[in-house]
Amino acid sequence: MITVREARPGDGEIIWRTTWALAEHHGFLANFVAKPADYERDLFCANPVIGALIAEVDGIPAGSAVWHRSYSTNRGREIMYLEDVIVLKEHRRKGVARALFKAAAQVALDKGYGKVFWMVLNWNEDAKALYRKLGAEIDPEHRLCSIDGDALNALAG
Amino acid sequence: MITVREARPGDGEIIWRTTWALAEHHGFLANFVAKPADYERDLFCANPVIGALIAEVDGIPAGSAVWHRSYSTNRGREIMYLEDVIVLKEHRRKGVARALFKAAAQVALDKGYGKVFWMVLNWNEDAKALYRKLGAEIDPEHRLCSIDGDALNALAG
Repeated sequence: MITVREARPGDGEIIWRTTWALAEHHGFLANFVAKPADYERDLFCANPVIGALIAEVDGIPAGSAVWHRSYSTNRGREIMYLEDVIVLKEHRRKGVARALFKAAAQVALDKGYGKVFWMVLNWNEDAKALYRKLGAEIDPEHRLCSIDGDALNALAG
Repeated sequence: MITVREARPGDGEIIWRTTWALAEHHGFLANFVAKPADYERDLFCANPVIGALIAEVDGIPAGSAVWHRSYSTNRGREIMYLEDVIVLKEHRRKGVARALFKAAAQVALDKGYGKVFWMVLNWNEDAKALYRKLGAEIDPEHRLCSIDGDALNALAG
């Protein structure tokens, strides 16, 4: 029995556990400095920019989705960016990811966000196949640019 | 003389003009439905999720940058997403883009955002060369997924 619910105060720990597992899976642990209290603070403040969903299998946390408010200048409207959709290893192949995407889509429509977007690693063929089955388009042309740390400080001057 | 300033009430029209020009340049006009009033409303509301910078050359608007608050689950902190950095055609090759990126980096640091990220179209070698010169990294592996319209409604069920 898969259920998905909105995160509530106290869920920072569950979200941290799942995002940590994803960072480990992707080999990103070196950059993973978040603490459960960070999510707790940023989810349950006065005007949160993020939201989260918790998936449970028979009442046990099996995954999570963290999204944040985003914006389309083409639309002149807020949209939803899915930062993480995670299913813990022992709960894969049960439909948990699909349930999380479906719930995220419902949250987006409830909030008047006409579009949801997210990233996938190009080598992750299983994920790409699922996303296409869900109706998503995968754009071949956009590439992700970023700057942080010393380079960001240097740019700011 | 290039100057960059934060957008102020009344700048919705300038931002609209520059974002429209970018959508035209990228062949995205079919999806461009934003109106100047949309930017005006979303920039100058109580808890805006977006911000904008206006670049001027000798006091004349030459470009703009629209960013929105974003979030890194790895950091457990807000970061900055640059939705658009635009230089109008007649003001290219003067250093306007660099000035906009520099100003955006300053805004990011002022707000405590330790990272700025944005997208580039892979065919845009000029843009990629500039971004690398600014100190940015261009990630080869991430791909952009999205769902909207009928597909989003169908997914939400």
